[in-house]
Amino acid sequence: MEKWRIAARRLLTPRILLAHGGGGRETSDVIEKLVKALVPKELWKVEGGSGLDLLDDSATIPVGGKTIAVTIDSYTVDPIIFPGGDLGVLAASGTINDLLMAGAKPIAALDAVVAEEGLETETLARILDSMIKTFALNGVAIIGGDFKVVPKGNVDKMIITTAGIGVILKPIRDNNIKDGDKIIVSGYLGDHGAAILSARKAFGLNLEVKSDVKPLTDLMIPLIEKYGDYIHAAGDPTRGGLAMLLNDWASKNGVVIAIDETQVPVREEVRKYSEVLGIDPLSLASEGVAVLAVDKDVAGEVLDFMIKKGYENAKIIGEAKMPRDPRHKGIVISRTIVGGFRLIEPPSGEIVPRIC
Amino acid sequence: MEKWRIAARRLLTPRILLAHGGGGRETSDVIEKLVKALVPKELWKVEGGSGLDLLDDSATIPVGGKTIAVTIDSYTVDPIIFPGGDLGVLAASGTINDLLMAGAKPIAALDAVVAEEGLETETLARILDSMIKTFALNGVAIIGGDFKVVPKGNVDKMIITTAGIGVILKPIRDNNIKDGDKIIVSGYLGDHGAAILSARKAFGLNLEVKSDVKPLTDLMIPLIEKYGDYIHAAGDPTRGGLAMLLNDWASKNGVVIAIDETQVPVREEVRKYSEVLGIDPLSLASEGVAVLAVDKDVAGEVLDFMIKKGYENAKIIGEAKMPRDPRHKGIVISRTIVGGFRLIEPPSGEIVPRIC
Repeated sequence: MEKWRIAARRLLTPRILLAHGGGGRETSDVIEKLVKALVPKELWKVEGGSGLDLLDDSATIPVGGKTIAVTIDSYTVDPIIFPGGDLGVLAASGTINDLLMAGAKPIAALDAVVAEEGLETETLARILDSMIKTFALNGVAIIGGDFKVVPKGNVDKMIITTAGIGVILKPIRDNNIKDGDKIIVSGYLGDHGAAILSARKAFGLNLEVKSDVKPLTDLMIPLIEKYGDYIHAAGDPTRGGLAMLLNDWASKNGVVIAIDETQVPVREEVRKYSEVLGIDPLSLASEGVAVLAVDKDVAGEVLDFMIKKGYENAKIIGEAKMPRDPRHKGIVISRTIVGGFRLIEPPSGEIVPRIC
Repeated sequence: MEKWRIAARRLLTPRILLAHGGGGRETSDVIEKLVKALVPKELWKVEGGSGLDLLDDSATIPVGGKTIAVTIDSYTVDPIIFPGGDLGVLAASGTINDLLMAGAKPIAALDAVVAEEGLETETLARILDSMIKTFALNGVAIIGGDFKVVPKGNVDKMIITTAGIGVILKPIRDNNIKDGDKIIVSGYLGDHGAAILSARKAFGLNLEVKSDVKPLTDLMIPLIEKYGDYIHAAGDPTRGGLAMLLNDWASKNGVVIAIDETQVPVREEVRKYSEVLGIDPLSLASEGVAVLAVDKDVAGEVLDFMIKKGYENAKIIGEAKMPRDPRHKGIVISRTIVGGFRLIEPPSGEIVPRIC
């Protein structure tokens, strides 16, 4: 039987579901069981760099004594203009943040736009302008792109795919977490997911919260320059939220990550909104938040530094531990707000589709 | 008034048309009047590299004494499996060829897939496998990607956006054409466009022609290594075909390009099919053909080299001339098959939408 047929069967569903694109467990399945199964292992990365072996925010390639970081993402959000942002700023911020989280300084981007026939020219121009302004404010050149149009009814108004290129200042690879590392978040979690849900008037409920979408250049570049050696992992909790990111780190590093939910910054209204919708706020996407695993000896200093940089809601929310019992490797647990503990599992199901 | 509103008005149509994505005159409008108007000129490229200033097949960035080439394209073809190929081989070949045409050796790729909910898992696996195999056979690592799913009816089954990274062996910039340069094509033109049209049973006509989609690594790498100094421009005539590519070169270089249609290799059945459909075969896309502008002194030798490499239908089809009358700059003319001359204009209108 053909290799691709075998790979397809391992996914267990004869058709692709929305959940496969949700950024949770099912997306990991697509990557692990389809993509990684089909790519020969020697082509998972360029010699000396990283790629499918690490599945970090960016891949890396050594070039002429330096290392470049490269990332790609397709952005499709409904609605394309939402409280606090739009598809353009989302695409640019996502690309910039993926480079920063790998320890890279973003230098250039390329964008491929697929528009639906009949899209208002002004909407296209406005979204492109948002994207371009966001890149420009962060010193990122826009060096190329593509533009395609598909017949009406074939695309959700507009899909932007952006590729970003950066130069590594200090490599941050997410498989480098040490026993005792503190987990720091840079601000309120879940605002983006909540804002999108609310903009769709999910369940008729309205919420006065804006997306947190923004590039983290002003925070991450000074952090990498000053504390690069002590940042053992960095990520932005987009699709699948903090829950997905911490589970990913726990399994990549074979550690237990223990957090304290009373310390996790979530806006009261977002928490209540999630409760009503029956969604774990830790699974909601953020688009302008950094999560760091930092050496315990400097974690307090790093937190102060972040607060001084204007990230006044930054918090140490927990730590990573090397478990004595190997069965505990890869687990994320949390002290809950009402007391007691709960297991934080990788989110699965649709969560919030078309969110980024 | 906002800059984006002004830019939108310069496009003259209140809504985006299929023609804007056709790769012809209207696509140039989107790039020139929207994108380039909105991106600050100092961000059209990275210092020392190239980007929106040249709009070549790839952008370039100097890194640590070397130069990397980067390209992005979204691929959406209907049907996604067609005679001679599928969306996967198309995406990989397009990416590889865009790097080669800039004088780069392709080394790595990233892919972002947007699938429609309900897509057969086997179709997804088969298309991914095609893409991966094509990259693998050409030594290109697949170092990262993204996977999203949109609700049914929102996307044409599947869109693949690929970014490619290469290392420049010998920069080929398409604004380097010299007086007297010969124009060489590596094989039959328009097979891809004709095959897609036929697969859609346009006008109920069936044609026994396969897409020419393939990476040109085996041709271009030896050519660049041996004749890099003499290749003054290189391109693959995809959307908009040879007509678009030559017009692009003529206007970029301020030359007249004169070709002889009796020398342009087009299969008899493709020519007849185009005639019936009222399409200029020179506007039909090819996905596995190189077009080169080569120094006149070595053009014959280069042609022989190409034929020896297995490209037995390669032909010298014309030449570039510096016109004495500046009003003739940027013009493409052709001797026609029936005798006499005609102006080859940049194609406009829908041509063949969703072709690549």
